[in-house]
Amino acid sequence: MLNFDFYNPTQILFGQGQIAAIAKQIPASARVLLVYGGGSIKQNGVYDEVLAALADFTVTEFAGIEPNPSYETLMRAIAQVKAEKIDFLLAVGGGSVIDGTKFIAAGALLEEDPWTILEKRGNNIVAAMPFGAVLTLPATGSEMNSGGVVTRKSTHEKFSFMSRKCFPKFAVLDPSKTYSLPTRQVGNGVVDAFAHVMEQYMTYPVGAKVQDRFAEGLLLTLIEEGPQALANPDDYDVRANVMWCATLALNGLIGAGVPQDWATHMIGHELTALHNLDHAQTLAIVLPSMLRVRKEGKRAKLLQFAERVWNLSGGDEDTRIEAAITRTEEFFEQMGVKTRLGDYGLGAKDLDGILSALEAHRMVKLGEQRDVTLDVSRKVLEMSL
Amino acid sequence: MLNFDFYNPTQILFGQGQIAAIAKQIPASARVLLVYGGGSIKQNGVYDEVLAALADFTVTEFAGIEPNPSYETLMRAIAQVKAEKIDFLLAVGGGSVIDGTKFIAAGALLEEDPWTILEKRGNNIVAAMPFGAVLTLPATGSEMNSGGVVTRKSTHEKFSFMSRKCFPKFAVLDPSKTYSLPTRQVGNGVVDAFAHVMEQYMTYPVGAKVQDRFAEGLLLTLIEEGPQALANPDDYDVRANVMWCATLALNGLIGAGVPQDWATHMIGHELTALHNLDHAQTLAIVLPSMLRVRKEGKRAKLLQFAERVWNLSGGDEDTRIEAAITRTEEFFEQMGVKTRLGDYGLGAKDLDGILSALEAHRMVKLGEQRDVTLDVSRKVLEMSL
Repeated sequence: MLNFDFYNPTQILFGQGQIAAIAKQIPASARVLLVYGGGSIKQNGVYDEVLAALADFTVTEFAGIEPNPSYETLMRAIAQVKAEKIDFLLAVGGGSVIDGTKFIAAGALLEEDPWTILEKRGNNIVAAMPFGAVLTLPATGSEMNSGGVVTRKSTHEKFSFMSRKCFPKFAVLDPSKTYSLPTRQVGNGVVDAFAHVMEQYMTYPVGAKVQDRFAEGLLLTLIEEGPQALANPDDYDVRANVMWCATLALNGLIGAGVPQDWATHMIGHELTALHNLDHAQTLAIVLPSMLRVRKEGKRAKLLQFAERVWNLSGGDEDTRIEAAITRTEEFFEQMGVKTRLGDYGLGAKDLDGILSALEAHRMVKLGEQRDVTLDVSRKVLEMSL
Repeated sequence: MLNFDFYNPTQILFGQGQIAAIAKQIPASARVLLVYGGGSIKQNGVYDEVLAALADFTVTEFAGIEPNPSYETLMRAIAQVKAEKIDFLLAVGGGSVIDGTKFIAAGALLEEDPWTILEKRGNNIVAAMPFGAVLTLPATGSEMNSGGVVTRKSTHEKFSFMSRKCFPKFAVLDPSKTYSLPTRQVGNGVVDAFAHVMEQYMTYPVGAKVQDRFAEGLLLTLIEEGPQALANPDDYDVRANVMWCATLALNGLIGAGVPQDWATHMIGHELTALHNLDHAQTLAIVLPSMLRVRKEGKRAKLLQFAERVWNLSGGDEDTRIEAAITRTEEFFEQMGVKTRLGDYGLGAKDLDGILSALEAHRMVKLGEQRDVTLDVSRKVLEMSL
């Protein structure tokens, strides 16, 4: 096991009816800015429940955080925070809203241009405003971690940042609020969570038995419950399991003490920035080819994955490995997320642009062994055509 | 899944060499009281490493925290804290030292007699001094939770308390510091962690798939690594897995959103208070009989335990359940912890005293269904003779 430093102070209020509990978590005299995206929270009752819970606070709103939240939008929110002397932020939505709120929380207290947060990957954050989250879309895990991803539209750049100042004070996870999610978002969320686990699990063995078994437990649960969430949208326990899986997939726990990959995510970010694909779509395209291209370096864990997650024990090693990757691909397709560049109208003509973007962003030695060069990334993308 | 409120802000510094990192975690001007037990930390190098790490702080010491820390001893520590104007506590040792330090931290700031912390189960704690922990004995999980157990020698009472004010700020877990532990403490620690998982896992199903798989992952790892820790005391990864298992067995995560039992612990506490058995010995005695006596209420989870943890799928249900309980018993014995009251010189003549103590402490409706009456506890103890 590798050495690690694990810290996660976010309080999780999980279950039906927990939105009502947020008032106790916010300082009594706080001036609260409600940060949200489009109108879905007004249709599923979350908006009304949140306002009812905040009846005793001064509340203003910032709507319009888009999927893949943009620097441009978030800078307008920071201006509002300053103008209205806001001292507590409440993110209501999915990962994009929560990521955006983290950027607002840190950017509002920064002396320099908040874009530097992305240039410096969060290392220049010295303080952040306190904020909470009401999660409506299980996917990114942002509700219980300290990272975020922000896109600058003007330059087609999508960067991540992380800072221990950026943990939500609390997050409300009410599975019943996910019943009304569109099918596409349910599928995307399950694929996103699955890929998060894989980035931390599918590397090489370091004898970390607990982390491996926790990761496998999340993968098995996503495989069982993901299709159920599509088939029976109102099943509370199914939604609860998917929601808790997505949070635990990226709260730091399964990644503590093990190598981590993240090459799939880095290539995926370029695909979203250049071609506006959903984040989960990019992961479904890149991950299977990434595993095939890097089979040798990941052989031991791929065999473990085949046996423990897909229950594949017959045949030779390469057969089992290929079967496990194929099953993974089929699972993504079953969740309604297509796994080929061609499914999204992209082709060989687009690869140079993606590779140029990776090079421009210095993404030239990716992965747990730093051996995913541009040549390897090209092979991965070619295999995903 | 049941609703839950999960919160755990303890920072974990895990791995060889991490003791050196504690200086950065303690406020620069702090007056630190080092709290420890007997002399083992002076023999295994931990004491010297801690003092070296604290070279820039004002440090005094309180030694002599005993196994099953006593109210009487801890009150002397509280007097020292006040006399020396201590403002940070550092527990160096196992669960007893850390539990004791939590009591000191809360008791030193309490207006009323600190014994009320135990009478009121921690509900009267409004503040606690900040404290950290350097763990030397993986077992109780105290290093990453907010609970403690304290014994009043004068009245033979052993009570637990819990408060969100009582999380360690940080805990150092260096597996290499456990190489020199006596066999008995290694065995006790593994049994203790195993029993902690069982108290949260072995109840009835509520559709909480992640919690179940995490619990099973811990049990499987303890079963694999526990005997290895006895056979190869200097294997770093084995010690690391045992250590991280013990912490995760009782940090609140696997118990969030599921029913919990704890009847075994409550009976065990009386055995320790009256007859001075090691905590893990009492669990090894009580748990197997507890499962047999309450087989019907726990049937579904016992079958899941038999299949997923002990890989038992043949035969009828009752055969599989009995086999799983027997394997559990054999595992405790393999870890060097005897499973019968008679092994410790106790017999039928002692049962009335134990049951009277349970009654005096109002432990008359224990377990996840509140159906462990004194009659049930008597049956359990009779089966453990």
